[in-house]
Amino acid sequence: MPKSRPKNAFYAQSGGVTAVINASASGVIETARKHKNKIGKVYAGRNGIIGALTEDLIDTSRETPRAIAALRHTPSGAFGSCRYKLKSLEENRREYQRLIEVFAAHDIGYFFYNGGGDSADTCLKVSQLSETMGYPIQAIHVPKTVDNDLPITDNCPGFGSVAKYIAVSTREASFDVASMAKTSTKVFIIEVMGRHAGWIAAAGGLASSADTEIPILILFPEVRFDRKKFMQKVDQLVKKHGYVSVVVSEGVKGPDDKFLSDQGLKDAFGHAQLGGVAPVVANMVKQDLDLKYHWAVADYLQRAARHIASKTDVDQAYAVGRQAVRMALKGDNAVMPAIKRVSNQPYKWKIEKAPLHKVANVEKMMPKNFITRDGFGITDKCREYLTPLIKGEDYPPYKNGMPQYIRLKNAPVKKKLKSRFTP
Amino acid sequence: MPKSRPKNAFYAQSGGVTAVINASASGVIETARKHKNKIGKVYAGRNGIIGALTEDLIDTSRETPRAIAALRHTPSGAFGSCRYKLKSLEENRREYQRLIEVFAAHDIGYFFYNGGGDSADTCLKVSQLSETMGYPIQAIHVPKTVDNDLPITDNCPGFGSVAKYIAVSTREASFDVASMAKTSTKVFIIEVMGRHAGWIAAAGGLASSADTEIPILILFPEVRFDRKKFMQKVDQLVKKHGYVSVVVSEGVKGPDDKFLSDQGLKDAFGHAQLGGVAPVVANMVKQDLDLKYHWAVADYLQRAARHIASKTDVDQAYAVGRQAVRMALKGDNAVMPAIKRVSNQPYKWKIEKAPLHKVANVEKMMPKNFITRDGFGITDKCREYLTPLIKGEDYPPYKNGMPQYIRLKNAPVKKKLKSRFTP
Repeated sequence: MPKSRPKNAFYAQSGGVTAVINASASGVIETARKHKNKIGKVYAGRNGIIGALTEDLIDTSRETPRAIAALRHTPSGAFGSCRYKLKSLEENRREYQRLIEVFAAHDIGYFFYNGGGDSADTCLKVSQLSETMGYPIQAIHVPKTVDNDLPITDNCPGFGSVAKYIAVSTREASFDVASMAKTSTKVFIIEVMGRHAGWIAAAGGLASSADTEIPILILFPEVRFDRKKFMQKVDQLVKKHGYVSVVVSEGVKGPDDKFLSDQGLKDAFGHAQLGGVAPVVANMVKQDLDLKYHWAVADYLQRAARHIASKTDVDQAYAVGRQAVRMALKGDNAVMPAIKRVSNQPYKWKIEKAPLHKVANVEKMMPKNFITRDGFGITDKCREYLTPLIKGEDYPPYKNGMPQYIRLKNAPVKKKLKSRFTP
Repeated sequence: MPKSRPKNAFYAQSGGVTAVINASASGVIETARKHKNKIGKVYAGRNGIIGALTEDLIDTSRETPRAIAALRHTPSGAFGSCRYKLKSLEENRREYQRLIEVFAAHDIGYFFYNGGGDSADTCLKVSQLSETMGYPIQAIHVPKTVDNDLPITDNCPGFGSVAKYIAVSTREASFDVASMAKTSTKVFIIEVMGRHAGWIAAAGGLASSADTEIPILILFPEVRFDRKKFMQKVDQLVKKHGYVSVVVSEGVKGPDDKFLSDQGLKDAFGHAQLGGVAPVVANMVKQDLDLKYHWAVADYLQRAARHIASKTDVDQAYAVGRQAVRMALKGDNAVMPAIKRVSNQPYKWKIEKAPLHKVANVEKMMPKNFITRDGFGITDKCREYLTPLIKGEDYPPYKNGMPQYIRLKNAPVKKKLKSRFTP
């Protein structure tokens, strides 16, 4: 009896990329390569699921083991990512039919989707293709999001490295401000990501620790901005310490329930101008307290900063990729490898299996008891949760002073379909 | 004959701090400690020269060798810095008389001043106290400035680390944008320091190298902003590569000779708002090309980022501190240790002696042949100059995921004068 050829796998990256999503890719591909009897080739979608819809596949088997290993220390999405959410089967049957067409043409039996909440939903829909459309496939979600808002998993790969970047940067800038405060800047404001949840802003609180205390105020999206109360705090801390650092989440809202960043700024010609929230808070500090300020907006720097990635994060990102393949090999479908915290001191974790229908479309908010009563700081409970996630350094290799990040060949798989598809 | 007690030394930090100015402090103090027969105690000025004027001195002999060694990996100014320029002797004789009073009271015979161009001027004035006011002192300037604009010295301690931070961050963010460009951000804009000279902006050009090409446009303060020409470039590069990264210096000026950042923004209440230049450029890109953008403002993060300091920079910062003391021991006055580039490949450098009157009040601009003809990039000559300055990593120690930066005891020296002084 001839042995049937093993099915190929599809892997794609989705949504905002991170410093460690390629570590997950490395985990998926390296593990799949170890099981060639069960998994044929790993095809990556160019620009996420769009690559599947347009039959724009990348043949990862053309990459050297060394290149795949180097993904572990390379930030961003090596195959391109996308912001594209599949509609429901009822709303857009055409997309699902196309996916099946492409999967069938390339003999794809495994679907690994590396993303956040929206992507978990897409992955769940794909996992149901066997049932709904009669195409046999195993779909495994590989968790990733700097927002840290996926349920079940204790934390999300990608978050720990942003958290470390923000904690380290806030500490460093605070040292700077402290030394200038006598005759210059007294208030430093750093804007961080997090439109809905304050996980990243909370990480700014780690800049201050028992052995290195720093006056820090955090503006969480969970806490309505109270200008008067905030200014009182700024004033108090500047009087006591000579300076203060403010970590402000991009998602902070004012009493009118609008984003604080949305201030209706207009230029000299009356054109509306989009700004960040940091300059808005800075201007308020100037108006209300007349204190000298500086502000920074970390933007992409924070989620791309592989040079200061957390080792915990890199290890976990790799592990969820590896485990996703192992789950597939065991016959699982519609699951996600989730991180389970086993102990805090020493920090221990393991990977468990989470059913995907419990992950998709559920947003994990920050627990109320992670924010101090006054609304401007993190509690010990929060600190206990966050600290292990930023632990350890995992430096990339350098050449001539610059980190050596890999760029793959990303050779296309020959198209087999005649029809074209426009997503 | 009783041996005379060695004179004490005064050391102070001045102007904007850097990631490595404390390495210079470490170099000064460790070297002075090795010559106790010639230099008594090292007193640091709390908040720079203000500490001297107000007799607010710090006794560095109270710090352990370990603490002084840890300064080498600690960003910011450990003794506090200030923005304060001594007026000329004619304009403010009172300040000089006060300095002499304080120096005499504490038996200070050496003056080490760690700063940029303005500070070199202050140091020069102090070096002339022997002549002008009859108080014997040796004044040595220790160079430091992220602006890299001191003359004679091939480069300035502090610059290499900012350059590395900007080069690394721009590379990382560019990888991020490249992977998102298909369905999201196509133009990434990062604002960097440099009000007069484009040294730091130029470092953004290092993000792209022969082995890792990245489409980058640099907006230098040396080149008048031409909106139409810039937009053509952005459009071209986005069409060719799918994305572009823009490094914009805070000092860029428009055709009206005003800072581009000064756009006369007003909030909903008509209050003037101060913003950075990055959001201004971003809004122009939106208006003219309707491309999705993201922008970041690095601000203090760039000059405080000790976690990604250049080893060359750290070594040189320490060396100029050490050499300053050695020059003092040899009887020098009114000099500055300057870095001389001996060879490019391999990069070799040594410290030479520069006369302070040739340093003070001279600003070194970027050579014209460092900027490409189109005004948006760096030439090979510039690359050759910059590359060695960002070479090597010099990581600080970490604990629980956070860099361990030292905070000194900063014990005050007992005041000896009855009179108070208000600068």
